[in-house]
Amino acid sequence: MPRLTPERREAKRAEIVAAARRCFSRDGFHQTSMPDIAAEAGVSAGAPYRYFAGKDEIILAIAGDAFRLVFAPIQELAAASAAPSVADLVTASLQALSAETVTDAAGHDVPVEELLRCAVQTWSELLRNDTAQAHALDGFESVRGSIADALRRGQAAGTVAPAVDPERGARVVMGLLHGFLLQRVAFGLTDTAAFTGDIRTLLPEG
Amino acid sequence: MPRLTPERREAKRAEIVAAARRCFSRDGFHQTSMPDIAAEAGVSAGAPYRYFAGKDEIILAIAGDAFRLVFAPIQELAAASAAPSVADLVTASLQALSAETVTDAAGHDVPVEELLRCAVQTWSELLRNDTAQAHALDGFESVRGSIADALRRGQAAGTVAPAVDPERGARVVMGLLHGFLLQRVAFGLTDTAAFTGDIRTLLPEG
Repeated sequence: MPRLTPERREAKRAEIVAAARRCFSRDGFHQTSMPDIAAEAGVSAGAPYRYFAGKDEIILAIAGDAFRLVFAPIQELAAASAAPSVADLVTASLQALSAETVTDAAGHDVPVEELLRCAVQTWSELLRNDTAQAHALDGFESVRGSIADALRRGQAAGTVAPAVDPERGARVVMGLLHGFLLQRVAFGLTDTAAFTGDIRTLLPEG
Repeated sequence: MPRLTPERREAKRAEIVAAARRCFSRDGFHQTSMPDIAAEAGVSAGAPYRYFAGKDEIILAIAGDAFRLVFAPIQELAAASAAPSVADLVTASLQALSAETVTDAAGHDVPVEELLRCAVQTWSELLRNDTAQAHALDGFESVRGSIADALRRGQAAGTVAPAVDPERGARVVMGLLHGFLLQRVAFGLTDTAAFTGDIRTLLPEG
């Protein structure tokens, strides 16, 4: 077969990932085969294997995108010089979860709903796939570390209560985000924006 | 075949559910067949079908057990006459999630870890099974209503901030519980008890 330019290859890979995301979101990870993904992408049955060894690798790529969507805003805020409150950290991420689409690293628009439906399915896969779990745990701990640092800065600036343990407080923040993600896709949560006020009431400053 | 007494029938059904729970927890819902469940339970291949039409019905039964485990303590507290704070409601449930085993309605000891690993897999199934989703949403809304009532009583008694919207505040409480459940099974959260203090710091009274 003809060799693809790196740009064309990257575009093709993105098409396959987008097709897989639609299939997993609509039909479920276990009900989707590699030929299903190829058909959805409009490529030959063998084409997905030029980019991924199998479905597990594709869902890991999608899980990475979902992870960045949920946690990138919170990490950006945590890395900024200001001292965010706990509510600032949570609402930064809730806003990303409320959007219709998100732009991925390669500049493609990705439907948030699709990404989150894949994320929930990833959690089930983590339970039995040690490699995926180790990978996810690394990501989790990295975000948790950023949030803990931000909480320490908040304590120094008086925007976070001194009694909060930054490491465990960071777990609470991540727990809230995972909980909201689940409610958005499985338990009828539509008005995510309305939660911002409640989070601020429930998680007061300093 | 000989007719079973109601007690014997109930015990047999519980054995099949327990076997399915072990299989789903260890191997995953989609990697488990009805014959696998029969083999794990030590019964004939046809026996599970005398109790359940298929795997979907068994996971719904297990999901119901998991739902009761997570939310029964919070509903009991919400139904009690006292006015609980938001932290009281969250920690009641976190204590149940930290236990090794829980006693089900029929008096059997059920390993909490197994139940929670099944619960996470149920979330994936909800995304594509309308009947299961409607069922789960009913349960969710019922618990949410109880928590909202408790928050209203807390507001009257001064243990919950007046600015909290009880309906949406109840969603925040449930989000925290789902988030912790996920961390316990997939993100290395072992010391659930230590969180009680952090929750209390993050969610101060009135």
